[in-house]
Amino acid sequence: MVRANFDRHLRQLQDDLLTLGSMVEKSVAKALQAFKSRDLELSRQVIKDDDVIDHLRYQLEEQCVELIATQQPLARDLRVIISVLHIAVELERMGDYAEGIGKISLMMGNEPPLKPLIDIPRMADLATSMLRRSLDAFVNRDATAAIVVCNDDNDVDALYDQVYRELLFFMIQDPKTVQRATYLLWVAHDLERLADRATNIAERVIFLVTGKMVEINVGKY
Amino acid sequence: MVRANFDRHLRQLQDDLLTLGSMVEKSVAKALQAFKSRDLELSRQVIKDDDVIDHLRYQLEEQCVELIATQQPLARDLRVIISVLHIAVELERMGDYAEGIGKISLMMGNEPPLKPLIDIPRMADLATSMLRRSLDAFVNRDATAAIVVCNDDNDVDALYDQVYRELLFFMIQDPKTVQRATYLLWVAHDLERLADRATNIAERVIFLVTGKMVEINVGKY
Repeated sequence: MVRANFDRHLRQLQDDLLTLGSMVEKSVAKALQAFKSRDLELSRQVIKDDDVIDHLRYQLEEQCVELIATQQPLARDLRVIISVLHIAVELERMGDYAEGIGKISLMMGNEPPLKPLIDIPRMADLATSMLRRSLDAFVNRDATAAIVVCNDDNDVDALYDQVYRELLFFMIQDPKTVQRATYLLWVAHDLERLADRATNIAERVIFLVTGKMVEINVGKY
Repeated sequence: MVRANFDRHLRQLQDDLLTLGSMVEKSVAKALQAFKSRDLELSRQVIKDDDVIDHLRYQLEEQCVELIATQQPLARDLRVIISVLHIAVELERMGDYAEGIGKISLMMGNEPPLKPLIDIPRMADLATSMLRRSLDAFVNRDATAAIVVCNDDNDVDALYDQVYRELLFFMIQDPKTVQRATYLLWVAHDLERLADRATNIAERVIFLVTGKMVEINVGKY
């Protein structure tokens, strides 16, 4: 009976974590959409939404503390709760990158982006897919799926390298483009970091399931 | 008696956290020294040392799990232990940036850096000072000192901006310098992120002491 009660709490905690993940995913999509369509109002909304994400993350941590304090979980369950704590931090910081893209958008104002947007939309798709799959891997305790997520980070890194090189080329060819190229570089960089955070979640899943602390990714520049 | 026992465990945990912090600090100093003096052997050592940091962080997490599982701490103590868990992650990732600088150094090989090193050594000094002070603030539960650390992050960001602009200027003036400028940019970027991590620790201290989740810093590009 006590166990059933604990399991219910733990399921609730995981559900809330997924809710947080889905909010972050939507926020990233919105930020990109606003950036592409130069919709400053939508960018402002993304920035504002980040407060909700921060608040939910705070609530999740409180739930974890309460669950541990009142239910005295076994070490095995404790590891799951600690995973939730760590994953919630990663998600909250991913939300910051969405907010960051919103802020870059406002800085650009009505200036058109250096067209084309190069590989930035592809980076965004891949990063959000990694985010979603890392959370699925957590819920399913699926280390194999988590490893796939980690490997996908190489693709995001490769895209970022490409974007970096192309933008550098623009800047060197025509120094007048430096400011506009820098905006795009920042967006690409936020997405690259976002994928890193998904990788961190995946690494955490691998640790939870196998007990092995792997470190596949230490970030790009 | 039980309480005294718990306090002893908690002190041990904090001591181990400080040990981890001091290892990371030394690793950053070594990485910078190796980079400046083009000492590839020392760079290799920094990269190797990161395994020790990763291992200690893993041990710390195990200690936390054990302490919670066996001592059933009060919510207040639990928050301290959870802070240790979060801070340990930040420290371990700071170690990754030191490792990153070591790897950049190896990539550069015997090529001389684009002289002068601009403000990079100043960034390193400030970032490691922030690291040290954020841990002191944690041990002393000193929210005021933590706020100072958070504010110092603005100085690191300003230095990074300056380095970025100067390196961009080099690249635009002489496209042949792009590769060498990029190395320096990566190092500066690692240091900027390192300071962000110290800020994260400081924010965690503010939260632990005041119960308020502040978010002073969301990172630069």
